[in-house]
Amino acid sequence: MFESAEIGHAIDKETYEAAVIELREALLEAQLELKQRASFPVLVLINGIEGAGKGETVKLLNEWMDPRLIQAESFLLPTDEELSRPPQWRFWRKMPPKGKIGIFFGNWYSQMLIGSVEGRLKNAEMGQAIEEIVRTERMFSDEGALIFKFWFHLSKKKLKERQKELENDPRHKWQVSVLDWKQTKVYDKMVRGAERILRRTSHEYAPWYVIEGSDPYYRSLSVGRILLQGLQAALQADKPQRLQPHAAPLVASLDNRALLDSLDLSLALSKDAYQKQLAGEQARLAKLISDKRFRRHALMAVFEGNDAAGKGGAIRRVTGALDPRQYRTVPIAAPTEEERAQPYLWRFWRHVPGKRQFTIFDRSWYGRVLVERVEGFCSPADWLRAYSEINDFEEQLHNYGVVVVKFWLSIDQDTQMARFKEREQIAFKRYKITEEDWRNRDKWDQYVDAVGDMVDRTSTAIAPWTLVEANDKRYARVKVLRTLNDALEAAFARA
Amino acid sequence: MFESAEIGHAIDKETYEAAVIELREALLEAQLELKQRASFPVLVLINGIEGAGKGETVKLLNEWMDPRLIQAESFLLPTDEELSRPPQWRFWRKMPPKGKIGIFFGNWYSQMLIGSVEGRLKNAEMGQAIEEIVRTERMFSDEGALIFKFWFHLSKKKLKERQKELENDPRHKWQVSVLDWKQTKVYDKMVRGAERILRRTSHEYAPWYVIEGSDPYYRSLSVGRILLQGLQAALQADKPQRLQPHAAPLVASLDNRALLDSLDLSLALSKDAYQKQLAGEQARLAKLISDKRFRRHALMAVFEGNDAAGKGGAIRRVTGALDPRQYRTVPIAAPTEEERAQPYLWRFWRHVPGKRQFTIFDRSWYGRVLVERVEGFCSPADWLRAYSEINDFEEQLHNYGVVVVKFWLSIDQDTQMARFKEREQIAFKRYKITEEDWRNRDKWDQYVDAVGDMVDRTSTAIAPWTLVEANDKRYARVKVLRTLNDALEAAFARA
Repeated sequence: MFESAEIGHAIDKETYEAAVIELREALLEAQLELKQRASFPVLVLINGIEGAGKGETVKLLNEWMDPRLIQAESFLLPTDEELSRPPQWRFWRKMPPKGKIGIFFGNWYSQMLIGSVEGRLKNAEMGQAIEEIVRTERMFSDEGALIFKFWFHLSKKKLKERQKELENDPRHKWQVSVLDWKQTKVYDKMVRGAERILRRTSHEYAPWYVIEGSDPYYRSLSVGRILLQGLQAALQADKPQRLQPHAAPLVASLDNRALLDSLDLSLALSKDAYQKQLAGEQARLAKLISDKRFRRHALMAVFEGNDAAGKGGAIRRVTGALDPRQYRTVPIAAPTEEERAQPYLWRFWRHVPGKRQFTIFDRSWYGRVLVERVEGFCSPADWLRAYSEINDFEEQLHNYGVVVVKFWLSIDQDTQMARFKEREQIAFKRYKITEEDWRNRDKWDQYVDAVGDMVDRTSTAIAPWTLVEANDKRYARVKVLRTLNDALEAAFARA
Repeated sequence: MFESAEIGHAIDKETYEAAVIELREALLEAQLELKQRASFPVLVLINGIEGAGKGETVKLLNEWMDPRLIQAESFLLPTDEELSRPPQWRFWRKMPPKGKIGIFFGNWYSQMLIGSVEGRLKNAEMGQAIEEIVRTERMFSDEGALIFKFWFHLSKKKLKERQKELENDPRHKWQVSVLDWKQTKVYDKMVRGAERILRRTSHEYAPWYVIEGSDPYYRSLSVGRILLQGLQAALQADKPQRLQPHAAPLVASLDNRALLDSLDLSLALSKDAYQKQLAGEQARLAKLISDKRFRRHALMAVFEGNDAAGKGGAIRRVTGALDPRQYRTVPIAAPTEEERAQPYLWRFWRHVPGKRQFTIFDRSWYGRVLVERVEGFCSPADWLRAYSEINDFEEQLHNYGVVVVKFWLSIDQDTQMARFKEREQIAFKRYKITEEDWRNRDKWDQYVDAVGDMVDRTSTAIAPWTLVEANDKRYARVKVLRTLNDALEAAFARA
């Protein structure tokens, strides 16, 4: 879920300085209007990886805006008075009144995250704590509060670099952290806990924004812009609850760099290497599917990708390894009449494999957040709620032992053009290319955004996305088979 | 929470038969329109106490309506195919399509309830299971489904009577129940589990209706009417999601009998008995508050009641037992400017006592669902969501060790009139009676409904309501003190 916040977002000093002048003015203006209307409070929650710039960014916000209308609160150590009352009391007493902005460090998420790193919270307890937070934030929102939640992120590598820098920085010495971030496992556990918490607590009335924290210009401008847009929209709607559901991407991208751009599409395999590796992986898959440990599992493989990215070919290389009784392929096109009379996920639930079965989805439930979003076949409210509905669906599958493997086959625009042309020229491939394919191509950038959001919001530890560099078909096919095999082996090892 | 469903609701045969003719016609008409439009499905979940008429009622619905448009499904024993897939699969495959009504026995609640009776589900696991259901039902509702949830209730006494009847009924023999309802503890655990589950899963988009099941006429007509009203409203709004939040009382009352009517207001104490018992309870309170076990607790007492019911006098008898440093009284009137700038519950959170402290609220957060509801000071959506917000608030208090005791002081209209007149005649009491009191009196029936709903929705095992028969002030004062003392002792014993 943090994929897009590890690709090195950055902007240059010049762009930054030019943008900040305008941003500050607009922020001050919005803040003044917020104060004059005094019709709702603003709550900003700050969490994230150590060294990702949380403190620096809030300091900057204080400089940019009118500090008399901002209350920054830190909840690291409770006072005696606070310890003598229910844990929520300390947050209630510091709530910003209508017309003001409250910035909460060390808020209700911090304790949960620390608990999850230290292993104090069991799975079900964590689930319950999350749902208590959901109810509380929903209530604050119903009562009128505008809520922003920022997760400042760093990749593990960047964290290490940052720690070296900070060691030599005297200003850093006084900072307190209850966690020993020098330990790799602290980072791993924190990210795993955060993934679950962010996924479950990101709602249209209180969305999470993931900010890549390595570049100070990028992170400050991102946070400032998100605050500004949110404030302006809420002031215009007069009440935050009347806002349209939150359509911002999970991971802010000011520099127009997207997750898909970070793939190395030049990856390729020679014919020899391909044939050898393909045969090896096919044999491995056949063995794994026949393994008696597969009796406790089922396998679902999802294929999504650009038009002409080679989904069909890849699927054939997978099924080529198997007996037809061992798998089923479900092509997803327009829903049938019966399917249209049911909730969206019904048409996928009906194809959920039983134990020891393997089902391949040629396109899938992700259509909701891809084609339906881009083409406007459903409302923003519908595709926005689909992310968490899909996560719930896949969690239910996972909890039962179903292994869910999801592929996005990615090609660049030149490769797509070449393949379209080839298809038009070869008679038996002509059926594969339609008007619609050409229309989709015009919406390339919108699909890039939709795919980025999809991966950020639905790539989870239990059902991760695999992005497949597919300019070279051979490379793609082998990567697909290998990923399937690795996922099965990992599931067998866990059980 | 089942208080109003244990007062013996019943209607006579004649009324029933006259009503059923109209009801059947209207139900058939609504059903036909539902089918023709086919714009949403209807899901009816049936749960409750054994012998409370679940099966009989659904049988009757089938007779009243067009059975071709109703699918009744029972999920008692899963098939092999179902066992081979995630647990939710069996419900998905039986989902009614748009235009049809699905009636689910043995649905997703049943397993949870059985688990809670058998003690298989731990507290946190139950919490997590509840929240999974909330997310699933929310999704069904977002997808267009109109959802009704019925809890068929019987008091423990009625269950025993019913079991005797059923023993001699041959038609009952084939019925399967996984629970041994003959054991008293099964009933107790079921009701405790149901209280929590119903409280957490009753939402405006999928409300619970509690139906007292002892009288067949009453329960059938209640269920039929609720279904009809819900269907008609949804058809009018075209989509169930566009419905106003659900304003129906939790416990259906077709016979105009309310919880408050079931109180015996003739209860009284002689002067002698009063003085003796009062002194005894006051001494007991003083001792309990000074007990060292109170260090782990705090005490919050809430006083609500009819105007002139004697709240002030009762509070003075409580505080009379104590040193002024041992308690604080918080009178709740119109909110201050500072309070109006905050979420509703803020003004009560700020007065939450620390450990070893005792706070008395003269009126309270229940104003939201009493005066604000009756006077229209807030929208139905606001007071409807307040029930669960209040339950959450009190649960947070309870989890920390705060003992919450809530009193409704109840008098009849004659007694109120006599006290109003007395107040007007006695100079030093004249300030106590205002124009507003007379206006409130005109809304007596609306308050009766509001109090009934309040008790049904917020009287919980962790913070129960005590209804105080207050026509006799002496009786009321002693009952208040005794209840406080009993609650403290019970808390000490639990810890």
